[in-house]
Amino acid sequence: MKSQQPLDGVRVLDLTRVLAGPYCTMVLADLGAEVVKVEAPGRGDDARQFGPFVGDESAYFMSLNRNKRSITLDLKSDRGRAVLLELVRAFDVVVENYRGGTMERLGLGYDRLRAANPRIVYAAVSGFGHTGPYREKPAYDVVVQGMGGLMSITGQPDGPPTRVGASVGDITAGLFTAIGILAALRRRDRTGEGGKVDVSMLDCQVAILENAIARYRVTGEVPRRIGNRHPSITPFTAVPTADGYVVVAIGNDKLWTAFCDLVARPDLRHDPRFATNQSRTEHWSELEPALEEIFGARTTDQWLEALEPAGIPCGPINTVDRVLADPQVRERGMVVEMAHPTAGRLEMAGCPVKLSGHADAAPNPSPLLGAHTEEVLKEYLGLDEHEVARLREEGVV
Amino acid sequence: MKSQQPLDGVRVLDLTRVLAGPYCTMVLADLGAEVVKVEAPGRGDDARQFGPFVGDESAYFMSLNRNKRSITLDLKSDRGRAVLLELVRAFDVVVENYRGGTMERLGLGYDRLRAANPRIVYAAVSGFGHTGPYREKPAYDVVVQGMGGLMSITGQPDGPPTRVGASVGDITAGLFTAIGILAALRRRDRTGEGGKVDVSMLDCQVAILENAIARYRVTGEVPRRIGNRHPSITPFTAVPTADGYVVVAIGNDKLWTAFCDLVARPDLRHDPRFATNQSRTEHWSELEPALEEIFGARTTDQWLEALEPAGIPCGPINTVDRVLADPQVRERGMVVEMAHPTAGRLEMAGCPVKLSGHADAAPNPSPLLGAHTEEVLKEYLGLDEHEVARLREEGVV
Repeated sequence: MKSQQPLDGVRVLDLTRVLAGPYCTMVLADLGAEVVKVEAPGRGDDARQFGPFVGDESAYFMSLNRNKRSITLDLKSDRGRAVLLELVRAFDVVVENYRGGTMERLGLGYDRLRAANPRIVYAAVSGFGHTGPYREKPAYDVVVQGMGGLMSITGQPDGPPTRVGASVGDITAGLFTAIGILAALRRRDRTGEGGKVDVSMLDCQVAILENAIARYRVTGEVPRRIGNRHPSITPFTAVPTADGYVVVAIGNDKLWTAFCDLVARPDLRHDPRFATNQSRTEHWSELEPALEEIFGARTTDQWLEALEPAGIPCGPINTVDRVLADPQVRERGMVVEMAHPTAGRLEMAGCPVKLSGHADAAPNPSPLLGAHTEEVLKEYLGLDEHEVARLREEGVV
Repeated sequence: MKSQQPLDGVRVLDLTRVLAGPYCTMVLADLGAEVVKVEAPGRGDDARQFGPFVGDESAYFMSLNRNKRSITLDLKSDRGRAVLLELVRAFDVVVENYRGGTMERLGLGYDRLRAANPRIVYAAVSGFGHTGPYREKPAYDVVVQGMGGLMSITGQPDGPPTRVGASVGDITAGLFTAIGILAALRRRDRTGEGGKVDVSMLDCQVAILENAIARYRVTGEVPRRIGNRHPSITPFTAVPTADGYVVVAIGNDKLWTAFCDLVARPDLRHDPRFATNQSRTEHWSELEPALEEIFGARTTDQWLEALEPAGIPCGPINTVDRVLADPQVRERGMVVEMAHPTAGRLEMAGCPVKLSGHADAAPNPSPLLGAHTEEVLKEYLGLDEHEVARLREEGVV
């Protein structure tokens, strides 16, 4: 079955830490790429220190580094850099997510990697990218969520700008980087030449702003926070019920008519203020109290039972415990269990790319720090155990 | 330069509408794939009707469909389906984002497409995927943001669950679909066999929940809304200033010490409650008022001028107008201008995958409905203009 894996044969040397880079290489590993994680001796990926812990292992680290091997290598030593450049010759892809300029300072910039292997695809994911005035500035998720505009359009109309509760600044950058790597590999296979993929977390935030840019450019009005509703589809929001919320997405006038019939409100159906999607959007302040009155009379479960048979797109607002228990989520293999040699079993999100002929297998556990150093150096550089032992004595690995 | 494009030679038959699918094929087209959009005669992609409009053209549609050609084809007619299957023979990829079961009802399910072309990569992006109990249920962005848990962890501690202001339910699914297509093409090139990529918007929401799943599984506590701060890094949030907000991300104890020195607060530096990242997180309710007092004394610009030289990751919360004017965003080519034949010029977000040897060119404008029908049918099926005219008379195109 190994040969069935879509990215079989793609070798990825992974210098990344924490989130954006490890998320990218996790997706590649889930699809069958061979990922070797390169970590600093003694310390490793910063995320190994992030809670919560299971025994001595970070659950955060474990959930981002399945299906990878780990070697240690001191990139600040001459010998460590030399070993890295030897490895680069045997790999297809190098990924890193240091701040811009770091790889050059280490003597490991793209020019140096390309000199070692002209076929290498070098992917850098950083806060602001490797060009432009901010190229060496540090960034974390919340910085780019703020600078990229997403926080300005997320939140309640009378509330503060709001950070998305998951790190979409890192994660979308990880996804675009994976796309860039696969595209560059395709070109490499055709032309024989690798390339540099330069992804900026801030750029990715701009790329996901969606219709906010078009709305601003056409109307001149700066998009603002509008709570849970959609700027141009109505009703398309979360409405309070007797015991929580229900999400309804009435995307067209036919569904609106069906909804008014379902709730026996011919007055709304025939009200010209609510006759079209555009007029419902314009008259939202008058429609909202009517919807709140309607939905407040029943529980969320009762509403879902009523709305679903009528074909009205709807759903609950699930907390994380309910997400993990959802029958669709489980049936799709989106909750996977990893058996870690020291931490035991841990559930985590699976890979959402479902490809025929590529069965979801139980993932290999995240590696202990340096667990595969000897194995990888033997396999790729032909070192023997004495040579690896010497590197270890010298603190290089 | 055409041959330099990373996805040169990849032919994509694009049956998608609105957002998740068109976003996926836009990324592929930006990277050089040849995308032919297949639309219903007379009507086309639903998004052509979504405001805001520039003249008769939807700015929403224009900003998602650059670099694509458009043909019309009635998939509900036998002749239209036959033409589609002939086209499938000449293409590498088919992408659609109908509700689960729709392609089968049209007689165009994967088995049928594969019979026409065993090398085809068929990618379906839908609300819930093509398997499981919800496989035929309709969904829109807000439904999966609610069901997938993201809304439950986005928002202020005392506020309601909050929809992310951009459609990350659609967009992340579009990105995972692009990754699935590129991975399946790689396998196809090696094995000669295509495959089916089945991406669910709900699955993708689960995949981006990040550390919320690990936190729940390890601690048993259901993750809740915590405003703009990070669950385990402190301070890592947006703080009110004299005239707005500033985002600060103090990711380690060294940065904390630097910050206390910068603001001349030795009392905070030496307070054992704030000595480590973990203790700062535990004592957030006591730290927050101190930070608000400090940051309230100066404007956002003054804070950025003070924090940046000290190496403390920080940034403003930009509204969309400021994002588009940001010098880094512009220098990176993240604002591109398209010249549309009837609507004129429109600015939109560029592609965040920056690849060496692949220059960002001004994008080709989004196509008028069916603008390339004759050209594409001549090019791929060898039809002459009389045959195309007959299809047009019959309402097939």
